[in-house]
Amino acid sequence: MEGRQAVRELLLAGARKVREVVMAEDLDPSPILDDIRQLAREQRVTLSEVGRKALERQSHTESSQGVVALAAEMQPAELDDLARPAHGVAPFLLALDSVTDPGNLGALLRTAECAGVSGVVLPRHRAAHLTPTVTKTAAGAIEHLPIALVGGLPSALEQLRSEGVWVIGLDSAGAGSIYDLAVADAPICLVAGAEGKGLSPLVTRRCDEVVSLPLRGNLDSLNVAAAVAVAAYEVARRRMAASDGAP
Amino acid sequence: MEGRQAVRELLLAGARKVREVVMAEDLDPSPILDDIRQLAREQRVTLSEVGRKALERQSHTESSQGVVALAAEMQPAELDDLARPAHGVAPFLLALDSVTDPGNLGALLRTAECAGVSGVVLPRHRAAHLTPTVTKTAAGAIEHLPIALVGGLPSALEQLRSEGVWVIGLDSAGAGSIYDLAVADAPICLVAGAEGKGLSPLVTRRCDEVVSLPLRGNLDSLNVAAAVAVAAYEVARRRMAASDGAP
Repeated sequence: MEGRQAVRELLLAGARKVREVVMAEDLDPSPILDDIRQLAREQRVTLSEVGRKALERQSHTESSQGVVALAAEMQPAELDDLARPAHGVAPFLLALDSVTDPGNLGALLRTAECAGVSGVVLPRHRAAHLTPTVTKTAAGAIEHLPIALVGGLPSALEQLRSEGVWVIGLDSAGAGSIYDLAVADAPICLVAGAEGKGLSPLVTRRCDEVVSLPLRGNLDSLNVAAAVAVAAYEVARRRMAASDGAP
Repeated sequence: MEGRQAVRELLLAGARKVREVVMAEDLDPSPILDDIRQLAREQRVTLSEVGRKALERQSHTESSQGVVALAAEMQPAELDDLARPAHGVAPFLLALDSVTDPGNLGALLRTAECAGVSGVVLPRHRAAHLTPTVTKTAAGAIEHLPIALVGGLPSALEQLRSEGVWVIGLDSAGAGSIYDLAVADAPICLVAGAEGKGLSPLVTRRCDEVVSLPLRGNLDSLNVAAAVAVAAYEVARRRMAASDGAP
């Protein structure tokens, strides 16, 4: 686990055992570093300060921002659990069909957490793994976001549908617009595909509906992380409006 | 100019003189490469195929995707021109306050173009320059998006306000929510700040209103590119609804 926000969230969430935090000894003072030191002290996690070169040997990303933590592996969630309401709120899931770019995957997870997504579904073999680059870009989102790893996305979507989740594909080839979705507070799963390729035909067939985002300029596609940011916030806005009784 | 989408949009837009397109000679066939070859032929732009190593010597980004173009520099737009309606549509501007990360800047420009932003305002000295990494990540957006480079952002915002543009800051410290904005079809300029730091006090003072995006999870901030994606699409949705006479 590398990067300042990611390490702070790792300690804050307390979702897994942290063995050690390692910091470069030459870092300028900063509030987030103070947070990390205090959290480590409170949780009796060993904190070592080492030379920059020693830290870089432990680092897997291009920029660890001088902070690395060693933690137990994240335990994946069960798909069944994601499909159930939590605290009386219907699930709001995000499934990713072969998003392989680690920067995009990390950005997506971070935005999803902020939008109020309650769980993520990733194909075990085809998607990018949760590498140090992903967890760093996600800025701690994976500590808070249950992630289910599934054998195949089409069958996972079929299972979600059988449990009453409404499955909405996001694809520039989608016939409808995200703004015409009749989203209320029902359980929902947004499905986004790899940039360029979009959703695979097998995945598209398991969607209740496939929608697109309007492109109002000259370019013919949005980056997948931007598209998911817009779509997830739009779904969240509608769910909120539905639960408030607003139009 | 590097990257396949960026070079295709460069040729498609025709906004500036292209001197030469250079491709790696070992590329697998792909529709976008066919587009680039055809556009270069139509526009009588020299296309050379060279060895991979020769191409990499001309490349400034980590991944040129095997395609590099040499083009005249982009001419910046005038702020006054951005503040005027185009084709009867009120301006929808995006101003960036010291966004220095090239990946974020490129992603922002691409999303802005897709959301229907009509012009971008960048501080000349403090913002990231339009480097090859920016233009590649922007995937051609800078060919279609007029960009004004200004000496100081606060005075540029003041000038826009005096010309009737409504200036809306985007900051997690904003008192209101983007969803409570009474956006109709008036001229508008969204202002986003550097990640972590947010808007500078001088810029904040020149905003008519500062709004935030709801954070519905545990993290305390969105990536700036994701925040601008959500905000720009929300403004566009409301402008569209206003011009359609819908609620």
